[in-house]
Amino acid sequence: MIGNFMYYNPTKLYFGSESLDYLKGELKNYGSKVILAYGGGSIKKNGIYDQVLAILREAGKTVVEDAGVMSNPTLEKLHEGVKIAREHQADLILAVGGGSVCDYAKAVAASVHFDGDYWEEFFLKQQNPPQGQPIIPVGCVLTMAGTGSEMNGGSVITDEANTFKIGHVFDHRLMPKFSILNPRFTMTVPVEQMKAGIFDIMSHLMEQYFSGTDDNTSDYLAEALMKNVVTDAYKAVKNPQDYEARSNIMWVATWALNTLVKCGKRQDWMVHMFGHSVGAHTHAAHGDTLAAISLAYYKHVMSYGLPKFCRFAVNVWGVSSTGKTEEEIAYEGLDALEKWMKEIGLPTKISEIGVTNEMIDGIAKGVVILDAGYHKLSQDEVLQVLNKSM
Amino acid sequence: MIGNFMYYNPTKLYFGSESLDYLKGELKNYGSKVILAYGGGSIKKNGIYDQVLAILREAGKTVVEDAGVMSNPTLEKLHEGVKIAREHQADLILAVGGGSVCDYAKAVAASVHFDGDYWEEFFLKQQNPPQGQPIIPVGCVLTMAGTGSEMNGGSVITDEANTFKIGHVFDHRLMPKFSILNPRFTMTVPVEQMKAGIFDIMSHLMEQYFSGTDDNTSDYLAEALMKNVVTDAYKAVKNPQDYEARSNIMWVATWALNTLVKCGKRQDWMVHMFGHSVGAHTHAAHGDTLAAISLAYYKHVMSYGLPKFCRFAVNVWGVSSTGKTEEEIAYEGLDALEKWMKEIGLPTKISEIGVTNEMIDGIAKGVVILDAGYHKLSQDEVLQVLNKSM
Repeated sequence: MIGNFMYYNPTKLYFGSESLDYLKGELKNYGSKVILAYGGGSIKKNGIYDQVLAILREAGKTVVEDAGVMSNPTLEKLHEGVKIAREHQADLILAVGGGSVCDYAKAVAASVHFDGDYWEEFFLKQQNPPQGQPIIPVGCVLTMAGTGSEMNGGSVITDEANTFKIGHVFDHRLMPKFSILNPRFTMTVPVEQMKAGIFDIMSHLMEQYFSGTDDNTSDYLAEALMKNVVTDAYKAVKNPQDYEARSNIMWVATWALNTLVKCGKRQDWMVHMFGHSVGAHTHAAHGDTLAAISLAYYKHVMSYGLPKFCRFAVNVWGVSSTGKTEEEIAYEGLDALEKWMKEIGLPTKISEIGVTNEMIDGIAKGVVILDAGYHKLSQDEVLQVLNKSM
Repeated sequence: MIGNFMYYNPTKLYFGSESLDYLKGELKNYGSKVILAYGGGSIKKNGIYDQVLAILREAGKTVVEDAGVMSNPTLEKLHEGVKIAREHQADLILAVGGGSVCDYAKAVAASVHFDGDYWEEFFLKQQNPPQGQPIIPVGCVLTMAGTGSEMNGGSVITDEANTFKIGHVFDHRLMPKFSILNPRFTMTVPVEQMKAGIFDIMSHLMEQYFSGTDDNTSDYLAEALMKNVVTDAYKAVKNPQDYEARSNIMWVATWALNTLVKCGKRQDWMVHMFGHSVGAHTHAAHGDTLAAISLAYYKHVMSYGLPKFCRFAVNVWGVSSTGKTEEEIAYEGLDALEKWMKEIGLPTKISEIGVTNEMIDGIAKGVVILDAGYHKLSQDEVLQVLNKSM
């Protein structure tokens, strides 16, 4: 654990098939005016909306609905949410849905009592709310496993007018006060979304793992979480009603991006940079964009971080190292990753998710180049990676 | 992750060789009267006392010393600490030392504003302070890796008059508000204490791991932490000044017993029950008592939880399973554990730490028999395990 760092994560997690029972107790800690934020209405079809609303009413809360949060929450929607929360003097924002609804709730919560341009300050300038500014507490009832938003300060908002998607990781004040994680709720999402979520989890882990050379506890933990998600992805794809598999995937998702596995580490995050640009041109699911670019990217940078790629092969995929060169071991690890992806039905090329040769230049221009992994790409290498993935 | 559970751990951790620099900022969150709790004075020899005191004074705090906290804090000392904190109307208890000082600080913090018999209520009756009762915040500057007390609600107090040692795990209100983890501080403890701490960590992980049959994320995480401590124990014993190894061991210790790896699990804890009784008769170091009994105990219960013992062999020790029976694989895992223990210089028999044949009956009577692992021991089996370890 080289370097100095702080770990602080005060989100309270209620986990399990009965976890919604704890919502009523939590609600006692907050005032009477609750904003109920949710998405396109799927929670109305599957009954989660009714359950949550009944608990809110039983707790004597005044509920104001803030519906229609889209899967990539827009700046326009953020303005709307802030207006609603201000009008109704919200005491709590309860996000019911996937990571996007939770991301959105945090952005609203940070902005309501901010006396200035919150988009400029928090997202464009990457600042946190000033110390002392009131922050509306956020609670979360999670219905999809993947983003980890339920236990971190992250929030991604899209300025559609300027085709600009930007994330900010707020400090601990914006981490949800509590999150309710019921694995059964994740069984309501379509299998394709579950798969995209699974790769989002895997990618979060790989992007934090593939950096640094030191013997770091965070890498051991990341390997454990990767092994778990690999094993349970097979089970969940075979039988989406497998509670144990779905519950592990949900738990891994939370721990994959709640800052634990980045402690004492540099992090890569280039796959997310590629993925965001591919997503802007194709509107493919976020997890699918990550899956589609990963093999080309990791094969490209593998030689710069060979020991870690060998470790990945042996510790995550059980590759035997006997009598093999480091390159052979490392390649076998990426081959095992590819085999797993194909077996559970994930895309492995960007051409599979709608990217055409004509789009490549535009996508390449949209890829933000970071320098925290094993190798900083040149603009030309960005193009090479994209072309290798066609 | 079968079952319902809550995870909530609001301790803020500052980690690294510069982590003490953050103490001053933390102190701003608390009032002016600080109890400085510490042990036998080793922090005065190694300079940590001077560093901490300078920061407290610079922050304008009124410091009251509560020295002489012993490695097994006594009820008598607890009474003394409560009296000091009451007299001086403490705003913060800052524990500087190992897990015992931190355990003690929590017990004092819970008791100061409790209007009743705190020993009876918190320890004998295993209750938490009533809701609404003020609790004095606890901060910790850790100087030894092992117990995990820096990020949990645990506290163990010994009633010497009645030779009765009892622990209570308080709720989140007694978890330290912040803990400062500087791996360099752990380099000040003697190597033998470091080794005992290493086995304490390993035992915490094994005692949570060896239970249940389900495919559980907590077991994957425990394996990762075990692999890490096994690897770095070799490095730390070879070179106690190896910062990376010592830092990983310190970080693993915290995560081995901060409730993460018990989520969704039953837990065994019989090795600690044996260890406590052996300790009461020999005064051997806690970690050494756990080491000395572990092999005999695990060999005794192995057949009842064979799949998990196989998994331990393969995933923690890299045992190859090819062409072997489950028993053979499981035994190889325990043999690998034994080999590691001997190589780093830990006791593997209770006879090595001062237990004589005459003591066996008395020790056996003092072993509390739990029923949460793979097999509940009879009183006769307790004797068998002890005799096998002679």
